[in-house]
Amino acid sequence: MADIAALFFDVFGTVVDWRTSVARGLESYGTSRGIEADWGRLADAWRSFYDPYMEEVRAGRRAWTKLDQLQTENVADAFEALGLPVPDEMERRELAQCWHRLDPWPDAVDGLRKIKKRYVVAPVSNGHIRLMVDIARHAGLPWDTVLGAEIAHTYKPKPQVYLASAAALDLPPERCMMVAAHAGDLAAAGASGLRTAFVARPLEFGPGGKTDSKPANADLAAGDFIDLARQLGC
Amino acid sequence: MADIAALFFDVFGTVVDWRTSVARGLESYGTSRGIEADWGRLADAWRSFYDPYMEEVRAGRRAWTKLDQLQTENVADAFEALGLPVPDEMERRELAQCWHRLDPWPDAVDGLRKIKKRYVVAPVSNGHIRLMVDIARHAGLPWDTVLGAEIAHTYKPKPQVYLASAAALDLPPERCMMVAAHAGDLAAAGASGLRTAFVARPLEFGPGGKTDSKPANADLAAGDFIDLARQLGC
Repeated sequence: MADIAALFFDVFGTVVDWRTSVARGLESYGTSRGIEADWGRLADAWRSFYDPYMEEVRAGRRAWTKLDQLQTENVADAFEALGLPVPDEMERRELAQCWHRLDPWPDAVDGLRKIKKRYVVAPVSNGHIRLMVDIARHAGLPWDTVLGAEIAHTYKPKPQVYLASAAALDLPPERCMMVAAHAGDLAAAGASGLRTAFVARPLEFGPGGKTDSKPANADLAAGDFIDLARQLGC
Repeated sequence: MADIAALFFDVFGTVVDWRTSVARGLESYGTSRGIEADWGRLADAWRSFYDPYMEEVRAGRRAWTKLDQLQTENVADAFEALGLPVPDEMERRELAQCWHRLDPWPDAVDGLRKIKKRYVVAPVSNGHIRLMVDIARHAGLPWDTVLGAEIAHTYKPKPQVYLASAAALDLPPERCMMVAAHAGDLAAAGASGLRTAFVARPLEFGPGGKTDSKPANADLAAGDFIDLARQLGC
């Protein structure tokens, strides 16, 4: 790992616990309107529409669109899927802001601080720049800069997202390591020539939720960011 | 100023003392080769070729090119202007790295920390992302993210640099304030609808060097970043 210069981080699920934070935002919206629901299940439903909306952009059927706009649209699908009254456009725009206030996993900030002492650290997320800035300010994440989807104008796992992020740091892909709790993200990063580190986040989808285990070809696997820092010699 | 959400900072001269740091790098290069020169004057000469090289990109005669490459080319002009032996390409590439290790003005880090508590802070510089990341890591600058020339693929004072930086934060120009020690930068930012703050840096070009004074139409003028933070209510 001696020649690695930068660590790229998936954010939703890997750095922050989106499910708990989004469920909290949905609950706050719902209870103020007398709506009763399983807020964790609603958060899961919302998340399930994340990928199909991005796919429109990846496939070139839709021009580059920031995640806030996609979330403003597909939160309607989530409410509909659970048979709940669909929020109007202004409410949906406000609900999309839930994703700007996500809490970090307990080890994330300390781990990132350690890793940053030796490596450039940047989110390589499907979230846009403003979203990443707001999450970092909310959660105290010490990024060196924001890279990822908005740099490439398409979404992971398209190779351009990883390659444009490496190019923004003037680094060849093999000097960058992608860190994620998701096998698909790591497989795509690895196929683009990046090194890969798997971090287990067993509670991403709530207690009993299904999460990925270490992909066979990941360069590293860590229990959390403190463990990752240790394995990287930080 | 109540509706301002982000502060954009010019970096070379406004946040960091490029002249002292670059002169030190040139001296280290020169003395190891037995070259004698006025290193501050050589740094000034190098700086004087900065704008004409960027103008090629601004005018569309040259494709988007990162500042490292322009500095690798124009350092030759600086040595030539002072009648010194011109470094070869590898040496020039190494000399361009001097710009990655610039020291901050004494008030810059504390001032930015205070301002960041209330506002998003980002460099809107003609330096590219990697250069801004390296300077921030060297100097301890707590940016939220890097914006500026590489986001827009052209150089200040082109309006696109200011407008693309505001758009990256999903902000209208009038909710962003450009901070610079240079009247031209502030005039261009103001013409694009941004608010403007002048910070005096009387030593930017060394003792007795000519620097700008407060432009008549700047929204704010500060003696340093601590004073700027105070005026912004931070």
